[in-house]
Amino acid sequence: MTYCLGISLDAGLVMMSDSRTNAGVDHVAQFQKMRVWEQPGERAIILLSAGNLAITQAVVSHLEDKVRLPKAEAAARKKQGTLLTCPGMTVAAQLVGDAVRKVYDRDAERLKQQGSDFVASFLLAGQIKGGPMRLFMVYSAGNFIEASSDTNFLQIGETKYGKPILDRVVNPLTPLPEAVKCALVSVDSTMRSNLSVGCPIDVAVIRTDECRISWRRRYAETDPYWGNLRRQWGDGVKTIFGQLDDPDLSDGK
Amino acid sequence: MTYCLGISLDAGLVMMSDSRTNAGVDHVAQFQKMRVWEQPGERAIILLSAGNLAITQAVVSHLEDKVRLPKAEAAARKKQGTLLTCPGMTVAAQLVGDAVRKVYDRDAERLKQQGSDFVASFLLAGQIKGGPMRLFMVYSAGNFIEASSDTNFLQIGETKYGKPILDRVVNPLTPLPEAVKCALVSVDSTMRSNLSVGCPIDVAVIRTDECRISWRRRYAETDPYWGNLRRQWGDGVKTIFGQLDDPDLSDGK
Repeated sequence: MTYCLGISLDAGLVMMSDSRTNAGVDHVAQFQKMRVWEQPGERAIILLSAGNLAITQAVVSHLEDKVRLPKAEAAARKKQGTLLTCPGMTVAAQLVGDAVRKVYDRDAERLKQQGSDFVASFLLAGQIKGGPMRLFMVYSAGNFIEASSDTNFLQIGETKYGKPILDRVVNPLTPLPEAVKCALVSVDSTMRSNLSVGCPIDVAVIRTDECRISWRRRYAETDPYWGNLRRQWGDGVKTIFGQLDDPDLSDGK
Repeated sequence: MTYCLGISLDAGLVMMSDSRTNAGVDHVAQFQKMRVWEQPGERAIILLSAGNLAITQAVVSHLEDKVRLPKAEAAARKKQGTLLTCPGMTVAAQLVGDAVRKVYDRDAERLKQQGSDFVASFLLAGQIKGGPMRLFMVYSAGNFIEASSDTNFLQIGETKYGKPILDRVVNPLTPLPEAVKCALVSVDSTMRSNLSVGCPIDVAVIRTDECRISWRRRYAETDPYWGNLRRQWGDGVKTIFGQLDDPDLSDGK
C-alpha cells in the first residue's frame, strides 16, 4: 500500500508521500513515489502515485520519455506538449490521464487474465507561471478531479487512518509549516496502524507564485525532528485522553 | 456502513456500535446493531453486526427463532442448544457461524445474480458462568477468530478512522471507564470523517465474572457527557497539535 497526501493552501502546496511498496508481506520494498518536473521560476509540478507499481512506473516513464524526446519530435507533439512545456495545469493533468490510458491499453487485458485489476491513482499539483496553483487527483480511468477551498486536501492509498487529524486542523488559511506538521502527524497515525506504509517520508512545498520547489525534505525513521514530533504527538494525545472525564459506569444500565 | 468495536480487558468487555445503515446516500436509516442474550448471573452474550442489513437481520432472526422454540423442539436440538442454553462461548460463536451459513445457503446465489456480494461480519462477546470471558469476530463464511492479549480489540465495518487512538491507548490492563471513553473517542473520529457512521451510539459493559450486562448506555447526538467529551477531545487535539514544534521551512530544499 501507500499513503500520499496533497494539501492546497492560500500560501502554497504541500505534497507528501511514503516510500513503501509491497506485493505480499514477504516482498516489501522501498520506492520513491514523488516525482518532480521543474523549471525554477517558470513551473514546478509534483506527481505522487499509488497502486500497482508496474502501472505507476509505466505512467511516469511515458511522461518522462515525452520530456526527453528530441526537439523535432517534440515539436510535432506540441499541441499538448510535455509536463515541462504544457501551457497550464489542466493540460498537465490531461497528460497524466493520457499516460494512464496508454498503460491501460497496453496492460489492462493481460492483468485481467491474471486476475489483477488495473489499480493506480495519482496526485498532481503545481503551478505554471501566469496560472493558478492547482491540485488534482487522477484516477485509473485517466479522468481527474480538483481540490477546492471546501475540500482542500486530497489523499490516495491508505487514506483513512490519517484523515481525522486533517479534518480537524487543515483549511485553506493554514500556514505552510503547520500544514507540513499536520501531514507528518497524519502519516505517523497511518504508519502506526498499517504496516504497509513506511519511511522515508518525502515532503515538498511549492510556495504560491514561486513556481519552484520551495522546500523539500526526506524524513528517515531516524530523523531527529520527525522522531521528536512523533513522540510529542503520541505523549500529547495520551495526556489529553487522560484528562477527559471518564464516563460514570456506576449509574446502572 | 457501520462501526462496531469490541474490547476485551482483564476487567471485562466493552462493546460499542453505531446505528446508521445506508443503501445509497438517499436511503439512510437507523437500526440498532447490538443484540443481547442474557440470563443475569448465568450468562451475558452480546452480538454486533456489520454488512448487508438483510443478511445480518436474517442471521439474528435464526438465532432468536432458536431461542423462542417450544421446549420439546429445543430438546431435540440440544446438542448445541441456543445462545441462551449453549454450554460455552465457542459453541455460541459456532451457533452464529451456523446461522450465517444458513442465510448464505438461502440468499448468496440470488445476491450474486443481482451483482451483490454476501457481506456480513459480527462481533460476538460474553461470558457463561464457569467459563472465561471471550470476544470473537465471525466472518461471512461462518468461521471466526478470537481476540487475544496481544490483539485485545476487534473492529468491524468502517474500522480505520478510529483505530489510531485504540492502538495508542488500549491494552488488557486498561480500566473499563477508560476503555468506554476510548471507544467513544474512536467513534467520534470515525463519525467526523465518514458520514455513513452515526448516532445514537450503543455501549454495553460486561464486568468479568458478573455474567450479566453490567452497564449499558445509548448516547444520542444530544447526550451531555458525549457532547462534552467530543468537544474536550477536539479542543485538546488542536491544543496539542499547536504545541508541536513547526518544521523549519527556511532550511533550503
